Amino acid sequence: MARDTSRDGFGNKLQAYVLTHGTRIWTWIQSVPPFARLVNKVLIDSAIAMIPSRPYAYSLMTLDPHVPDTDVAKNTDTYTSWDSLIDRRYTGRHLPPAPDFNRDGALPHLDDLAVLFRKKNGATILSEKSTMLFPYWVQWFTDGFLRTDRYNRLRNTSNHQIDLCTVYGLTTKQTHLLRSFKDGKLKSQQINGEEYPPFYYADPEAGTVKPEFEGLYVPLNDETRLPAARKFQLFAMGVERANIQLGFVMLGTLCLREHNRLAALLAQSYPQWDDERLFQTARMILMVEIMKIVVEEYINHISPYKFKFLTDPSAFRNEKWYRENWMAVEFTLVYRWHSALPDTLAYADRTMPMVDSLWNNAMLIDRGLGALFEETCAQPATRIGLFNTADFLIEAAELPSIGLGRMAQLASYNDYREMAGFPRVTAFDQITADVDAQRELQRLYGHVDNIEFYVGLYAEDVADGAALAPLIGRLVGIDAFSQAFTNPLLAEHIFNAQTFSDVGWKIVNTPVTLADLVNRNTPPIGRRYDVSFYQRDGR
Amino acid sequence: MARDTSRDGFGNKLQAYVLTHGTRIWTWIQSVPPFARLVNKVLIDSAIAMIPSRPYAYSLMTLDPHVPDTDVAKNTDTYTSWDSLIDRRYTGRHLPPAPDFNRDGALPHLDDLAVLFRKKNGATILSEKSTMLFPYWVQWFTDGFLRTDRYNRLRNTSNHQIDLCTVYGLTTKQTHLLRSFKDGKLKSQQINGEEYPPFYYADPEAGTVKPEFEGLYVPLNDETRLPAARKFQLFAMGVERANIQLGFVMLGTLCLREHNRLAALLAQSYPQWDDERLFQTARMILMVEIMKIVVEEYINHISPYKFKFLTDPSAFRNEKWYRENWMAVEFTLVYRWHSALPDTLAYADRTMPMVDSLWNNAMLIDRGLGALFEETCAQPATRIGLFNTADFLIEAAELPSIGLGRMAQLASYNDYREMAGFPRVTAFDQITADVDAQRELQRLYGHVDNIEFYVGLYAEDVADGAALAPLIGRLVGIDAFSQAFTNPLLAEHIFNAQTFSDVGWKIVNTPVTLADLVNRNTPPIGRRYDVSFYQRDGR
Repeated sequence: MARDTSRDGFGNKLQAYVLTHGTRIWTWIQSVPPFARLVNKVLIDSAIAMIPSRPYAYSLMTLDPHVPDTDVAKNTDTYTSWDSLIDRRYTGRHLPPAPDFNRDGALPHLDDLAVLFRKKNGATILSEKSTMLFPYWVQWFTDGFLRTDRYNRLRNTSNHQIDLCTVYGLTTKQTHLLRSFKDGKLKSQQINGEEYPPFYYADPEAGTVKPEFEGLYVPLNDETRLPAARKFQLFAMGVERANIQLGFVMLGTLCLREHNRLAALLAQSYPQWDDERLFQTARMILMVEIMKIVVEEYINHISPYKFKFLTDPSAFRNEKWYRENWMAVEFTLVYRWHSALPDTLAYADRTMPMVDSLWNNAMLIDRGLGALFEETCAQPATRIGLFNTADFLIEAAELPSIGLGRMAQLASYNDYREMAGFPRVTAFDQITADVDAQRELQRLYGHVDNIEFYVGLYAEDVADGAALAPLIGRLVGIDAFSQAFTNPLLAEHIFNAQTFSDVGWKIVNTPVTLADLVNRNTPPIGRRYDVSFYQRDGR
Repeated sequence: MARDTSRDGFGNKLQAYVLTHGTRIWTWIQSVPPFARLVNKVLIDSAIAMIPSRPYAYSLMTLDPHVPDTDVAKNTDTYTSWDSLIDRRYTGRHLPPAPDFNRDGALPHLDDLAVLFRKKNGATILSEKSTMLFPYWVQWFTDGFLRTDRYNRLRNTSNHQIDLCTVYGLTTKQTHLLRSFKDGKLKSQQINGEEYPPFYYADPEAGTVKPEFEGLYVPLNDETRLPAARKFQLFAMGVERANIQLGFVMLGTLCLREHNRLAALLAQSYPQWDDERLFQTARMILMVEIMKIVVEEYINHISPYKFKFLTDPSAFRNEKWYRENWMAVEFTLVYRWHSALPDTLAYADRTMPMVDSLWNNAMLIDRGLGALFEETCAQPATRIGLFNTADFLIEAAELPSIGLGRMAQLASYNDYREMAGFPRVTAFDQITADVDAQRELQRLYGHVDNIEFYVGLYAEDVADGAALAPLIGRLVGIDAFSQAFTNPLLAEHIFNAQTFSDVGWKIVNTPVTLADLVNRNTPPIGRRYDVSFYQRDGR
């Protein structure tokens, strides 16, 4: 049975149709740079314009029962204050709190919602489009700026920038611990002829870290509980989550190698530069490489459009959305794609549970970076949506995400549809064609107006050729574009050869893919490693 | 002899002529709100567009001989880094360092420049326009955001916002020390039936502060050296400079009273609000009142234009200059108007040296706020420029300012003229008609291209009806407008009744002057105190 599309909105349907049809016209537009740049600008500007620009009227500060940094009790009314406009330690929000919607008893019991995420008869729905590199990348990339404070979930520990803190640390002091202070390079070690971050622990049995890394981060509980054999191979990287899963470590290692490669390249061209300048310039070049991969490889992979987005910072100079970045709680929730990660992965010649890839750096060291990337890209991701989350992530990730939304007193799914320019749905079959999902949603929520933001997001059907459901796609696009193009490295008087050096400017202006990064940072094997977000037949 | 105006620039002359003539046309434009708003927008946008928008390519970080927060030595080459783009602890800069211009021996001995500021035969040149309220206001207002770090002059301790830190402290924790946590009010005391900030010291002899104010700030050396009798009457206010001079204390006290008045007013209208909400809303209203006084009373006093600027935040939504604030070293130097402060002041029935008004709160308490404001406004300021600085400020303020410019390796006066859209001068008589100044500049610098930024700024003649010389006026305008209208309180989705409350929104939209603030916060005397930046015949 097909989904009832009567509440998709005419404008939305038209836009989707135009952008997903007419390959020849789009190819032609893309081939004429001024047209391509104009379309790029119009699409991005009009997407962001769907919702009000920053600064947000309210942050999660309003929900704090105390005056910030005191024990003084206060009402949790919803109002703006100078502190709430300035203090980005508190996470932002797009819509005001909806206390009535979230009142005790109004929403289903959290545990009762597990059924929405659990696989039907254990059956995994594979993605038709994405390889496992896709969820690996998403986790690594988003953990750099969507950082809920584990001690106070109203707050975050984000720098609110795509600054590769996962590689360089969150603060200058952490960066210093990771730097060799020689030739602009990050500290590293050679194993089996390949470069890796240094090991972090001095004594894995006792759980003590090397003195040179003291103060790098406070370990997660999961890390402190690890057996010594696992701790032994943890790497010293930028954030407390950097060793959390194989994909995270692969991408961190890749960036380390690229940074050190760039530093060496710069040192060759600019022998008079000192360590500091080599380090800083290599870092800036790498950050732009990653931002280009974000827009041109990753976002274009997500997008079902025939038109391919460009990294064209010069298009965004007078935009009203060009305001100081501030991560919003809704952005963290639209970016929780736990269902994209399969339960198992193929590793070397065997299949192993995905949980075994957590905190397990031996898997990388034993196999080497290139082979592991290629192997990752030979496996499909799973489809983002309901009934498709690995068991170990339902309790650990899906339900806590819904809990975060409730603590933040988020408005309903329908309210967010309305905010983002979609008509409110009036029946369950307007959300999804999946009758099981319709039935469960009906049973749990009774009426579509009662559906929570998080649940509604993931209940929506993913359109053909897309990686994401419509509301997720739009909200991700708004927050991602409006906070990526505001990066100071892309600013009018900064994005130039003066900043990056002539050598760096050439690199910054050369197309780059993840495959390029992998292949130039692994020992040669006589052919290119095959690395892509797309499954083989889609490449 | 007249100044040679051949290098003023035709466009600059035309603009100045048009804007300072035609009173009837300007009055008419001002009376038609849409025209007035359009002219306001065009004038402000075109002024700011004279120089590149933020972010700055370089901060003073490049001059730090160490990697920030380490002892690791580094070259002080001029280059951009991620740290320099992000770390606003280092002061920004508009033009790159000019090490050659500032090399050892290239510039006159600092002490030799004292002659440029010392009064000719002790004669003070009075301002024809401004009362002494003008320099009092300027010091109080600018010390809120132009805060050079006294321990490292490459850095600042600014919040980079007009946030009234002089009243509320620089951090939330400091704000807490100043709050009563009752009825939204700041702590205060009553003396002679008037409200003042609380006294700061517990034991002025021993120099110990009250426990409730511990951690408010690290006192300046000048404060620690004060006799106990002076310490006894120091007030607990937002910053370490808040007690520094009579005018500073008057304006701090005025804001305290207005804050507490607003809090009481809000409490009347919103009896259900708690202390926190009353405090925060009163603060936001006061901040907007002060910003309106800045634009509509203070900037219009400075400006020689017939057109009067408006606080119209809605005009500035898509501006490329709407970027995160960052105070620049040039902004601190164009705002050092030491010569506007006379050597003496009339107090009660006598004349006393201005130095006696430093750290001397008894002068305020004895006389009362209203009478003192009126007395201040009955006295002229002195003219901003060379040969007019009070002796005690030459060594203490003028020469260190030049020193700061040299440490920052600022480019030349002529380079800054060029940056700001003025032709480079080619002869001394194009800067000033004052033959003494011409002769001294010639003797000290030899050629106009060798004149330093700070000296050139203040050597320029002030045009009739203006308060500032042309280059100062333009640079102040650029940095002030582009960092005032970016205040989050004035943002599109914040500047509304939702934020300020209905009562607050009405206040925010009511014209307000410093005279209004004084008169509604002093015991009634049967008439209005006469308070103005303008001397009596100009009011």
